[in-house]
Amino acid sequence: MSILRNVENGVLILKLNRPSVFNSFNREMALDLQEELKSGARNEEVRVIVITGEGKAFCAGQDLAEATDPNGPELKTIVKDHYNPIIELIRTIEKPIIAGVNGVAAGAGANIALACDITIAKESASFIQAFSKIGLIPDSGGTFFLPRIIGTQKALALMMTGDKISAIDADKMNMIYKAVPDEEFENELYKFANQIAKMPTKGLGLTKKAVNASLSNDLTTQLALEEVLQTEAGQTYDFNEGVSAFLEKRAPEFKGK
Amino acid sequence: MSILRNVENGVLILKLNRPSVFNSFNREMALDLQEELKSGARNEEVRVIVITGEGKAFCAGQDLAEATDPNGPELKTIVKDHYNPIIELIRTIEKPIIAGVNGVAAGAGANIALACDITIAKESASFIQAFSKIGLIPDSGGTFFLPRIIGTQKALALMMTGDKISAIDADKMNMIYKAVPDEEFENELYKFANQIAKMPTKGLGLTKKAVNASLSNDLTTQLALEEVLQTEAGQTYDFNEGVSAFLEKRAPEFKGK
Amino acid sequence: MSILRNVENGVLILKLNRPSVFNSFNREMALDLQEELKSGARNEEVRVIVITGEGKAFCAGQDLAEATDPNGPELKTIVKDHYNPIIELIRTIEKPIIAGVNGVAAGAGANIALACDITIAKESASFIQAFSKIGLIPDSGGTFFLPRIIGTQKALALMMTGDKISAIDADKMNMIYKAVPDEEFENELYKFANQIAKMPTKGLGLTKKAVNASLSNDLTTQLALEEVLQTEAGQTYDFNEGVSAFLEKRAPEFKGK
Repeated sequence: MSILRNVENGVLILKLNRPSVFNSFNREMALDLQEELKSGARNEEVRVIVITGEGKAFCAGQDLAEATDPNGPELKTIVKDHYNPIIELIRTIEKPIIAGVNGVAAGAGANIALACDITIAKESASFIQAFSKIGLIPDSGGTFFLPRIIGTQKALALMMTGDKISAIDADKMNMIYKAVPDEEFENELYKFANQIAKMPTKGLGLTKKAVNASLSNDLTTQLALEEVLQTEAGQTYDFNEGVSAFLEKRAPEFKGK
Repeated sequence: MSILRNVENGVLILKLNRPSVFNSFNREMALDLQEELKSGARNEEVRVIVITGEGKAFCAGQDLAEATDPNGPELKTIVKDHYNPIIELIRTIEKPIIAGVNGVAAGAGANIALACDITIAKESASFIQAFSKIGLIPDSGGTFFLPRIIGTQKALALMMTGDKISAIDADKMNMIYKAVPDEEFENELYKFANQIAKMPTKGLGLTKKAVNASLSNDLTTQLALEEVLQTEAGQTYDFNEGVSAFLEKRAPEFKGK
Repeated sequence: MSILRNVENGVLILKLNRPSVFNSFNREMALDLQEELKSGARNEEVRVIVITGEGKAFCAGQDLAEATDPNGPELKTIVKDHYNPIIELIRTIEKPIIAGVNGVAAGAGANIALACDITIAKESASFIQAFSKIGLIPDSGGTFFLPRIIGTQKALALMMTGDKISAIDADKMNMIYKAVPDEEFENELYKFANQIAKMPTKGLGLTKKAVNASLSNDLTTQLALEEVLQTEAGQTYDFNEGVSAFLEKRAPEFKGK
């Protein structure tokens, strides 16, 4: 199985599982990841999705053996049918999606991590916009997210050089949420995911929707959207619970709806 | 009075004045702030507006007692009629607006600070996207500004966790202009405001207009806009004064027009 | 000659050459720079363009003597015919353009550096949004790039104050790619340019095209564009060479096409 799946306490963990090739993507793993994301979106028990890698790497990007196989899929197909749907799913699923970057994240692997809502990485992990090393452009939404996250100067430099950047530097330049010492990584990642899984999932989903739209909205349009989505959030069970708990000075128990 | 007002040397200081509830917003304070901003916009004597808080907090966001009062305004109304007009005013008033964050800035309080042109905070102050703790989404333009200021990764993490971030960290991640040691905060804030108040106000207003438009323009459109606004700036008294002073090797005396 | 030109190993070096006035722009130098950029774009031998300054300064922006000369060009003309075409050329030439900031970069000088793909600066260099000091707005794309690179808060502060920022701080806040110790600057700059010149130029050009478009695209549009441009990149000589070299475990020899 190219993807390992586990659900515990509302957290769906999806592990890229081709460790012998640093979890590089072939068609099977890409399509499997799409199915697992869709299934996690439908599963009401799931309140957070974590994408991480089995073994030493997070994901080395595209499996070049497949991309150069005369009987394999064309580059166009790889981008259109393998990666683009993954990125669209990550952004449109109205649940928090966390990348747990346990090792090298290169090419499409790096950009899938950046497309997630929140990326937590091992300090020893690294990010590589490897595309330029073989004449390609960053895909999997890299040209969309990276300039918006770290600005055009650092983004273009990383894209053009293909230089490796450490998780620690990525954290410092706001590229990821957090780099965590290796020995604490798993604990931190799952503690964090569990914490987010207990929060008002519906509200977090609407937040995600608002941020997605924001990136190409003007201010006035965005303020109007905030009004609509806040009204929707105000009608959830969790908003009532949150306010009641606040007024009663007790801890809230959110149901994610 | 929910807002304290003072004008000195061209600087209008607006102090949120509900210190017993950490300057949290009720309808009255929101509408008063709108009026004060409009009045400051019209007042030709005013060349800089400072928004700050009375007492220990900058602003704790929405007063939940009001939001949960069955006779109080609905969430929709609060966003539409209280906060959105404040944000629109802050952005469209063609004068520099500085947030002086003297303590905790939570929820709408945090996002009003981020919508200002320049935010200066006490080192001991903090910023909290508190919305997710009660199932809401960031409003008051938070979903517009925060991702544009610190990128989607850190923005979504702060929005989803509702974690407090110190002014010092906010400064490091470019979220605010500057964190200042507590004991120097007032001096620094007003020295800075006074300095800005002596600058060519009309040009600063046009700069603000250009940056507002930029956020949803493409490059070619923005270059054309720079041409239009620069031409307008070139027709001001202050441009003539600035150039004359430069050529005559003396300090300029700008009039703000 | 207002611009010194040199081509070596695929690197076109353009040196702003009015050192006695800190390489400030007059009409001649602006039009010459446009011609040199166009010529570098056409020249197939050129795979990287470096813009740097002769003498102590990178570029002090507009020559005020010219802007205030009654027989000189109007501000409108200066923006429209001098700077805007330079910025459009820098962004649309499908080759990497590197700013080597050897000293002060002020006004249009600062913003031309920020519009380049990658900016490398001497540690002792500095950046100044000097416009506000004489009542003007940032031009040369400054209102487009600066808020996208460092966020609205730091951008508006730098624009409104006109404060100088050191290259070291500019690096820390992601404003530029890298600040380099003065004594290593030239070596580093040209080593870097030579490294980029040996990379797959066509792919880098398509990357640049993708990032340009990204800044005003929504995600879905951008993913579709990545598909188109990646398909184009996959048809280049250099992609074939890159993949062959990878599979044959040898160093690739890219031709830039």
